[in-house]
Amino acid sequence: MSETTIERRRRLLGGSYRLFYDEPLEIVRGDDVWLHDSAGRRYLDAYNNVPCVGHANPRVAARVAEQMGRLNTHTRYLDTAILDYSEALLDTFPDAISQVMYTCTGSEAVDLALRIAARHNGGAGIVVTDNAYHGTSAAVAAISPSLGPGVPIGPHVRTVAPPLDGDGDAFAGRIAAAFADLARHGITPLAFIADGIFSSDGVVADPPGLLAPALDAVHAAGALYIADEVQPGFGRLGPDMWGFARHGITPDLAVMGKPMGGGLPIAAVALRPEIGAAFGETVRYFNTFAGGHVTIAAAAEVLSILTEPGFLDRVGESGTHLRTGLRALADRSEAIVEVRGAGLFAGVEMAVPAGRIVEAMRRRGVLLNASGPKGDVLKIRPPLTFTPAHGDLLLDALSDALEEVA
Amino acid sequence: MSETTIERRRRLLGGSYRLFYDEPLEIVRGDDVWLHDSAGRRYLDAYNNVPCVGHANPRVAARVAEQMGRLNTHTRYLDTAILDYSEALLDTFPDAISQVMYTCTGSEAVDLALRIAARHNGGAGIVVTDNAYHGTSAAVAAISPSLGPGVPIGPHVRTVAPPLDGDGDAFAGRIAAAFADLARHGITPLAFIADGIFSSDGVVADPPGLLAPALDAVHAAGALYIADEVQPGFGRLGPDMWGFARHGITPDLAVMGKPMGGGLPIAAVALRPEIGAAFGETVRYFNTFAGGHVTIAAAAEVLSILTEPGFLDRVGESGTHLRTGLRALADRSEAIVEVRGAGLFAGVEMAVPAGRIVEAMRRRGVLLNASGPKGDVLKIRPPLTFTPAHGDLLLDALSDALEEVA
Repeated sequence: MSETTIERRRRLLGGSYRLFYDEPLEIVRGDDVWLHDSAGRRYLDAYNNVPCVGHANPRVAARVAEQMGRLNTHTRYLDTAILDYSEALLDTFPDAISQVMYTCTGSEAVDLALRIAARHNGGAGIVVTDNAYHGTSAAVAAISPSLGPGVPIGPHVRTVAPPLDGDGDAFAGRIAAAFADLARHGITPLAFIADGIFSSDGVVADPPGLLAPALDAVHAAGALYIADEVQPGFGRLGPDMWGFARHGITPDLAVMGKPMGGGLPIAAVALRPEIGAAFGETVRYFNTFAGGHVTIAAAAEVLSILTEPGFLDRVGESGTHLRTGLRALADRSEAIVEVRGAGLFAGVEMAVPAGRIVEAMRRRGVLLNASGPKGDVLKIRPPLTFTPAHGDLLLDALSDALEEVA
Repeated sequence: MSETTIERRRRLLGGSYRLFYDEPLEIVRGDDVWLHDSAGRRYLDAYNNVPCVGHANPRVAARVAEQMGRLNTHTRYLDTAILDYSEALLDTFPDAISQVMYTCTGSEAVDLALRIAARHNGGAGIVVTDNAYHGTSAAVAAISPSLGPGVPIGPHVRTVAPPLDGDGDAFAGRIAAAFADLARHGITPLAFIADGIFSSDGVVADPPGLLAPALDAVHAAGALYIADEVQPGFGRLGPDMWGFARHGITPDLAVMGKPMGGGLPIAAVALRPEIGAAFGETVRYFNTFAGGHVTIAAAAEVLSILTEPGFLDRVGESGTHLRTGLRALADRSEAIVEVRGAGLFAGVEMAVPAGRIVEAMRRRGVLLNASGPKGDVLKIRPPLTFTPAHGDLLLDALSDALEEVA
């Protein structure tokens, strides 16, 4: 059955569509942190970040159902719901970031942020980290070295090693050198863009404040700082709502996506309004679906849950509990090199093949994944409703999996 | 009240967000072809194509509600719903187009189609029509001259006049010359892309078969033909499901979007599998939200409605009724230069300012818009559930509006 479905998928969708696991999962139902497969087996989801308030969250489902039955149009009619949501969203940002533009995907948001930034400073040169991933459009794939040699990065792009050693000054020095090299090639500075938890570079979180020298270096080079919050944003690094906040910086633009609508396609660029002024004056930008009633309704419900008193504190507590347990495992097992992360985003650098751990965990009913340039970092990134008790289930399974694989 | 909302919108969303009408509408509810504003007034919607099966379609709403309560994940788990939908969708295409890749927006679909095409033929040069609009990503804005001088088209792009005169051979000649000019500049052929109803060029539909010589010219130049079906697709030109079908051609790739999910963000590229092979082998493409359970469920319900026996025939009949009435008005009024279109997509070229007609129609409770390089073409593009009786309401209002404006 599964093999036939895989063949059919290959025929209909082609070669670009990849599946998780040696024996792919057919998921048929989700609730909270649980996914259920077609054989009736339940899995603890410690990987999916999009359903940030839990799979099939009933509040989000009810809000979407109500809105679907009433109205779903676009931003060329007046609507206060999008404005109320925008205000609530911008309230979670530093005061300087007081404007927001909507897209449907994180890729579109990064693509738009680059267009806005270029219109503001007239630059072209972009600096990213060695294994950065920012999205799929042509312009954004060209700044995503993690896509590998099949997708060349652009001649206007330079890469710098991420601050794996926690040395923010050295990281800032590499960024300054990269912009200097671009200038030497006659390429004017446009932007530095980084995911504040360095997801695809293998998860780098500490120390807090790490990115402050980078911000200064970017500005000294005459470039703009774009915080890619698609992965760290919306409380993933709880108690902080945004990845940049953990480092005490205010970027020029921030792009967000994945968990924003709890599963529906909505993403955005938040920015300092003075940076968007030139774009707003000269460029007609209309994204048919973006900012539509239904996705805004979903996003509003998600944000109202995330901003309930205590919610993000619980994310922080569950994350601390999980990392503490992972570090206790690391003390007992030479298979674990290092435990990194913040909030409910943990990276576990392994001395054994992480892919084998991922498969062993799946057999034990826990879903997670591997990341990093060498694929040697376990990526643990569950729905934010993941509790310390769920963490204990994961830790027990991982202890067991390590014995099998190590 | 309205002015305050407009100011608030400007402050929160910035200058890129435009509104329809001198006095913008605040829409609060929709049903079928009707939109209701905050003052309780009802408008006949003869403009919005996204809600193709009607605003707040109860079948689509119910299907989405059910799926939201059950599961909404991504394409890295196995799922037969996306395969069932893909088969149903591809059944509406010629046999040669047997593969589909999903995105969230038409812009993403065009961006992806260009990446796939470039990976297949290694080309760079793109030919579009003079006032083409294909979308908002950096790569796609660069092939969208209708965005105006604020958004430069790329050095790898050539534009050709659309076949307003209905002369397909002359149109093909212009395309051949454009590719020859690209070659003379050392730019190898990538693709020709056109919206098969030339929406932003002022609506060109006739005669059927018009685009057949163009297809031959594109292939003779060594380029690929991309049919942009975002506007004409999904039965807009009923009884034909696709704009290219009306012209008896089979493109190499087809991109679709807007009405696909009845309002939720889903779009796609359908293609000849041999053209996608190189991309599939070398490029990792994962679009987080694209092909997710909820948007696929919405799209499946929309397609099941569109393919019900008689539905597309009724679109054709309602469209013929509307154009016949518009031509009768044209016979009586010198304000109308020409009536063009197919199915439920009509373009009415005006000798009087079309913008004033749009405002006059709004005062009479009918929503439509203006298009074309000079903005002199009324664009009538209602939900596909628009009946001959709705057409009569529109025609009565237009007759009245012409007397006011002309």
